[in-house]
Amino acid sequence: MSTKLRILSVLEQQKGQSISGQTLADILGLSRTSIWKGIKTLQKEGYIIEAVTNKGYRLSAKSDVISAETIRPSLLAALQDLSMHTFKTIDSTNDEARRLSSKDPIRQGIVLSEEQTKGRGRLGKSFYSPSQTGIYMSFYLKPNLNMADAALVTTATAVAVCLAIEKLTTKKPQIKWVNDIYLGDTKICGILTEAVSDFESGKVETLIVGIGLNVKEPSAGFPTELEAIAGFLTSSAEKASFDRNLLIAEIANQFYTIYQAIEERSFLAEYKKRCFVLGKKITFKERNQQFEAVPIDIDPKGGLVVRLSDGHQRTLSYGEIIMKKPFE
Amino acid sequence: MSTKLRILSVLEQQKGQSISGQTLADILGLSRTSIWKGIKTLQKEGYIIEAVTNKGYRLSAKSDVISAETIRPSLLAALQDLSMHTFKTIDSTNDEARRLSSKDPIRQGIVLSEEQTKGRGRLGKSFYSPSQTGIYMSFYLKPNLNMADAALVTTATAVAVCLAIEKLTTKKPQIKWVNDIYLGDTKICGILTEAVSDFESGKVETLIVGIGLNVKEPSAGFPTELEAIAGFLTSSAEKASFDRNLLIAEIANQFYTIYQAIEERSFLAEYKKRCFVLGKKITFKERNQQFEAVPIDIDPKGGLVVRLSDGHQRTLSYGEIIMKKPFE
Repeated sequence: MSTKLRILSVLEQQKGQSISGQTLADILGLSRTSIWKGIKTLQKEGYIIEAVTNKGYRLSAKSDVISAETIRPSLLAALQDLSMHTFKTIDSTNDEARRLSSKDPIRQGIVLSEEQTKGRGRLGKSFYSPSQTGIYMSFYLKPNLNMADAALVTTATAVAVCLAIEKLTTKKPQIKWVNDIYLGDTKICGILTEAVSDFESGKVETLIVGIGLNVKEPSAGFPTELEAIAGFLTSSAEKASFDRNLLIAEIANQFYTIYQAIEERSFLAEYKKRCFVLGKKITFKERNQQFEAVPIDIDPKGGLVVRLSDGHQRTLSYGEIIMKKPFE
Repeated sequence: MSTKLRILSVLEQQKGQSISGQTLADILGLSRTSIWKGIKTLQKEGYIIEAVTNKGYRLSAKSDVISAETIRPSLLAALQDLSMHTFKTIDSTNDEARRLSSKDPIRQGIVLSEEQTKGRGRLGKSFYSPSQTGIYMSFYLKPNLNMADAALVTTATAVAVCLAIEKLTTKKPQIKWVNDIYLGDTKICGILTEAVSDFESGKVETLIVGIGLNVKEPSAGFPTELEAIAGFLTSSAEKASFDRNLLIAEIANQFYTIYQAIEERSFLAEYKKRCFVLGKKITFKERNQQFEAVPIDIDPKGGLVVRLSDGHQRTLSYGEIIMKKPFE
């Protein structure tokens, strides 16, 4: 581990409390000059480290920088060896995950970025991804699943995000089928799953699961067109102390736990509990025709079973459903 | 165009005939030294160029090097601007196509290599790809098709390869569903289609179509395990003069022509004509169970409609069917 990361790890352990430069130097077996240089580097990277005369250094409780070193200790043992790639800014974590996985056909990993310049959502829409206010993460996986089972992974991810939020906050997120996560009437999280598959075998070889989660309200607010529909996880009172690294680790842990037993499909029960569209009136489009329907169930493949106004049942495998607000 | 390629283009036009160094220098407005250097470079790249005293330079009719410059003039006008990437050796043209397309989300192109070190076939099998004896090419496309229509592209490719072979040779290739091309009882070509798709929209964004075609018998023969099943397009008498560049261009042209009108599905009639499994006895596996059946039709999505021994009909979308040899 580099000097910088060794210093960070000690400061993280005492986040919000001061520790003298000499104590840091003693603990790490480094010179005072090395400590000073390391602190400067961390400050440049965005860590809020205060240097107080006679008290030493203090990592502010407000310091909130995504870092693999901070995430890793909170990951399950099975995830300790995962490749983690962090960026200050990237076009899209899904695009980077695809580039990484096309270079290395075997490894699995996580891509994280403070900002996305070309964040992508479903149906080619963009996903607003301003710096340091959200979690933009993509898993790249080598699942060797058939296409139907791979579609379950995208559904499973929505459950993992909800469980992680519920564990770390008092919020009750809900799911709009397929994969949008809402708090009340506003969307706080979108999931974009992309697959690399082989048509002849019908197998999915690489699966890229991208999660875009609005954690705090952007300092300049959301762009006008998103104001009415976009929400965020933490209120201004909570956001100061909210640790994105912890939530990232928890999402990864929840995801891994579900993914390991995906064939059992027990997460579908959790999905249904949080899927607020069941029993409501929706519309959906198909080949430029619009249908009204009431969703009545989630099928074993994650499809949405709906009853049409003529009484017939249909199962939707993908696409977008439209609901009138307010949802409740 | 580089000096080297300008020289090559003049030699290609008079393939098999000599042209003096002075004439080359005059035509191209270059010094005799530049011509000499250019010829050396081409020879190093594998072009068989003979230098005969008092006669000049001659590109041997036997010279057979895949080159974008030789292919491009034979491509349809619509394909003139296609990106073409040629390699002496590569792990797999599909893998390279995937890397290229993940770097550039818009462009379409062709990857070609004299050799593949990790040529891949269906169901994770390897594809034997020795240097300069085959065509190893991959298209990378941005089709914006739904998953069902994208599966048609892989079927269309088999037809394109057959039509190209039929146009340039007297051979009558046939198709083993899904996508293997046979001459008699031996396989001469395999097609591996991979898709990058978005689960939420059900759209295929990038489609990679790889073609592995055995053109000549490898000088050391096929590895023992392939001897009985692998064939090649040209007999030893024909192979000396067979031009792989021309076949590559013709495959691309035929492919493009079908691909442009893929929704009309008229190529399915051509597929059926060449699909020798119809009416024969086959077996296929599904979830570790084996079934006997007789294929009776190709459905509008390229699926194989089979009649089971109990009289029931089924449509296979992907997978492998097994037939006893000899086929006829």
